[in-house]
Amino acid sequence: MDKTSFYKKVQKRTNEILNSSNDGDIPSKICDITIMTLVILNVLSVIIGTVPSIKAEYGTPLRKFEFVSVILFSIEYVLRVWSCVMSELYQGSIRGRIKYMLSFMALIDLLAILPFYLSFMKVDLRVIRIMRLFRIFRIAKLGRYTKGLNLIRDVFIDKKEELILTIVAMFFMLIMSSSVMYYLENDAQPDQFSSIPAAMWWGVCTLTTVGYGDLYPITLPGKIVAAFISMLGIGMFVLPAGILASGFENALNQNNPDKDEQSATEAGICPHCGRKLEDE
Amino acid sequence: MDKTSFYKKVQKRTNEILNSSNDGDIPSKICDITIMTLVILNVLSVIIGTVPSIKAEYGTPLRKFEFVSVILFSIEYVLRVWSCVMSELYQGSIRGRIKYMLSFMALIDLLAILPFYLSFMKVDLRVIRIMRLFRIFRIAKLGRYTKGLNLIRDVFIDKKEELILTIVAMFFMLIMSSSVMYYLENDAQPDQFSSIPAAMWWGVCTLTTVGYGDLYPITLPGKIVAAFISMLGIGMFVLPAGILASGFENALNQNNPDKDEQSATEAGICPHCGRKLEDE
Amino acid sequence: MDKTSFYKKVQKRTNEILNSSNDGDIPSKICDITIMTLVILNVLSVIIGTVPSIKAEYGTPLRKFEFVSVILFSIEYVLRVWSCVMSELYQGSIRGRIKYMLSFMALIDLLAILPFYLSFMKVDLRVIRIMRLFRIFRIAKLGRYTKGLNLIRDVFIDKKEELILTIVAMFFMLIMSSSVMYYLENDAQPDQFSSIPAAMWWGVCTLTTVGYGDLYPITLPGKIVAAFISMLGIGMFVLPAGILASGFENALNQNNPDKDEQSATEAGICPHCGRKLEDE
Amino acid sequence: MDKTSFYKKVQKRTNEILNSSNDGDIPSKICDITIMTLVILNVLSVIIGTVPSIKAEYGTPLRKFEFVSVILFSIEYVLRVWSCVMSELYQGSIRGRIKYMLSFMALIDLLAILPFYLSFMKVDLRVIRIMRLFRIFRIAKLGRYTKGLNLIRDVFIDKKEELILTIVAMFFMLIMSSSVMYYLENDAQPDQFSSIPAAMWWGVCTLTTVGYGDLYPITLPGKIVAAFISMLGIGMFVLPAGILASGFENALNQNNPDKDEQSATEAGICPHCGRKLEDE
Repeated sequence: MDKTSFYKKVQKRTNEILNSSNDGDIPSKICDITIMTLVILNVLSVIIGTVPSIKAEYGTPLRKFEFVSVILFSIEYVLRVWSCVMSELYQGSIRGRIKYMLSFMALIDLLAILPFYLSFMKVDLRVIRIMRLFRIFRIAKLGRYTKGLNLIRDVFIDKKEELILTIVAMFFMLIMSSSVMYYLENDAQPDQFSSIPAAMWWGVCTLTTVGYGDLYPITLPGKIVAAFISMLGIGMFVLPAGILASGFENALNQNNPDKDEQSATEAGICPHCGRKLEDE
Repeated sequence: MDKTSFYKKVQKRTNEILNSSNDGDIPSKICDITIMTLVILNVLSVIIGTVPSIKAEYGTPLRKFEFVSVILFSIEYVLRVWSCVMSELYQGSIRGRIKYMLSFMALIDLLAILPFYLSFMKVDLRVIRIMRLFRIFRIAKLGRYTKGLNLIRDVFIDKKEELILTIVAMFFMLIMSSSVMYYLENDAQPDQFSSIPAAMWWGVCTLTTVGYGDLYPITLPGKIVAAFISMLGIGMFVLPAGILASGFENALNQNNPDKDEQSATEAGICPHCGRKLEDE
Repeated sequence: MDKTSFYKKVQKRTNEILNSSNDGDIPSKICDITIMTLVILNVLSVIIGTVPSIKAEYGTPLRKFEFVSVILFSIEYVLRVWSCVMSELYQGSIRGRIKYMLSFMALIDLLAILPFYLSFMKVDLRVIRIMRLFRIFRIAKLGRYTKGLNLIRDVFIDKKEELILTIVAMFFMLIMSSSVMYYLENDAQPDQFSSIPAAMWWGVCTLTTVGYGDLYPITLPGKIVAAFISMLGIGMFVLPAGILASGFENALNQNNPDKDEQSATEAGICPHCGRKLEDE
Repeated sequence: MDKTSFYKKVQKRTNEILNSSNDGDIPSKICDITIMTLVILNVLSVIIGTVPSIKAEYGTPLRKFEFVSVILFSIEYVLRVWSCVMSELYQGSIRGRIKYMLSFMALIDLLAILPFYLSFMKVDLRVIRIMRLFRIFRIAKLGRYTKGLNLIRDVFIDKKEELILTIVAMFFMLIMSSSVMYYLENDAQPDQFSSIPAAMWWGVCTLTTVGYGDLYPITLPGKIVAAFISMLGIGMFVLPAGILASGFENALNQNNPDKDEQSATEAGICPHCGRKLEDE
């Protein structure tokens, strides 16, 4: 029984260390920072590992570093699955663990190590390439520690409805604009505006104002219509940007509302916009 | 009399089914989804039908699909005109039907089928081309079912005055900028800045910040003036975008005002920004 | 005395007709519309007159049209100066007229006709070219009749201070960014980034996000620094656009405040932002 | 003792003159304007001195002017350090002076003269080049006199947290987008999308909407993914711009809050938007 109790204690402590709880827990902090550093270094190594000259010279140490970090990530994953049952959310040694393994962050942890193991199996070359791409998604592991990455997810979830609505409107706009441009420019530039999908590439580049310059109208009617599309259509393509931006600003304000508020409320001023709440 | 009564009943039911009313009406729902799917597939088929390789290989089935869908759209149109008299808006078997046929959505329905029938007549090749372009506007039929497309129309109508005012200001800005650039660059690039209308193409590309790079100043005074025009003029060209964006945001908020406000006020949270009003 | 009285009467009526006063005054309205149409046609003729093919074919009628419209503008100018003394602002047959001639709109009217008369004098060819450019500024005559053009002037005057402040900040940013890029790219692209002023052209194109693509960094440090400059600097260059946009929106709201307000105030809701004014 | 008293008096007056205090102090004003003019001329001379043709012709006078201004800046610096002890912040002839010399503006003053003196020492050519770049930072000396430049610093400090958070999110977005594009385009354009860092240059150019056009997808999947990245990602890259813009607008409003508010409230106008609160 003493042994079981010790086993439970270790399991509980492991769970505590892996899931950063209170600020005073030094080992937990060290563990967090170690994993974060490992993830960042790993992502950096994947990024610079694609540079041909670096790959040629430092290929072997980079591969070794990846090997070591995948081993460490695997140990982390196993420990997380093993100790998760100590948290209230995942009760039950089998049901709790399965439930945990299907949670968002656990799936990301799995995705961070799986490609490495799968690469040993005899698989199609194209699958291996996708595997290699997936290594970059290890960066999502940082989501557990960084507010910035959680923000993105939260904002997208919060503004889902508005985003879908505006994306529908954007596609409508894009299809109309591109079809008109296709009919106007196809004769003059059969290779450039070869089809409506090709014209849609022009549409995206123009309406987002990116304007690479690989595709643009050259006929007079094409230019006139493109000018009007640019002037009015941009308003529609700014919408998702505006929705995301306002979503982020809201999310950022909710994170630190104290900063502006405290001194303001005492002065009888509305803390949110700096205006007086009541005039009497 | 029994026969007439049955005829009326069928007419009424047809009207109900075609105009999605209450949520419980399953046949109406199925009808809606069928038409929506047909429209989307039809537009997709028009779009991919312009890709030369697809046209060569799948031209016949695409044409067959268009034939079938136009037949179905025609049946829908006839049924709509026949049954419209059952709604209060379009009373009178002839006057009501004419009034309905001149309504916005009915005209769009007509426009979606007319090009097909007109294409059998001996007409000018250029008219046929425009006809073919009009097929893409079948997408507007979706306006009956999708909030996103109605939003666009509503916002444009709501902000009409502001848009006209700012577009006048934009044109003023555009004409002034382009004229100055024409006089500054014409000597150095007679082929590029060949006339004020040509310089206006530069103006639109620059002031919308699209910047394809097909036309830009190369002389020193041209670059200096272009720099100032860019820095200040962009503010004016962002205006319609801003007006549309604020219009959309208003329209989106009006669609679901309950979401943010109701639950919030109960929780003692400021309904305007989601922050607590009082700290106790 | 009867003659003088008649003279005064004509002078007074001329003043009334030229300065659109009340809506019922039909001759005044006709006069306004005639001048507006003449200005628009004149500006259009100047614009299309620069297209080589049109100039070759329609040069003579366009010149004749300009001749006629300058005569009419001259008559308008003389009548305006003659009759201005009837308005309270410009009392005194000489002092009043001089005061009027120095007013903003009168100077624009003069500028619209002066180039034509000066072109008959033996002047330098370059002066004539500038004269020809000035013809396009006849569009400013529309300022008397169009809200859109007055808006631009009002907003620029209203936001003068903020604009100057942000333009100073922008120049600071631009000088710093461009200097750094010059030092980083000069070795690799001595013809492109030949000097700091040349690099400033890159800076304007990048920070306004126009991005023509005639000038961009190619070295690794240049690209890294340019990436950071783009990501942060754009915020500063959006400022004047934002200031102008908010200025315009304010000006537009002041023009038609009734639209949204009336029904709202009855419901006890703040008419400006749709929020409740008092919660009790 | 009389001598010491006179010494102190001179020191005190020097401190007053160098640090513009009250408006009536004419010598202080002259000193300010002289230094400002000198800085602006100096920066202009550095900028135009990089233009090859100007360098060839006016190299010697420009160098002479720099020599003179560095001497003057040095005298200014020495006087500032000498007299700083008269202000309450920097008490103590040695401790006070060291504290002053480590202050932000004093370091900038030092940086403005140091490169000149260091250039006489036998140093690496590359160090000399960096020295020459540092001359442009003399513009920061204007920070003492210009609100615009202080604004930049204040806004960056005020919005530090939000900026870091959004920059983290931006990098996350950038790394993901660029990695995906690298895997999609590498085969088709091995020279353009040669590595993930190379693809990140594409990412920055696209997500900031600069779009130079030196790098863009050419494959169908690449274009489709790039279209979606553009449409959604721009929202994230607009964030720092939006944060800076709102920061600046706040800072600008704080600088002149009286303008809009005080006179307004007295006139019974809502101080928040300049509209009448009640219609009676």
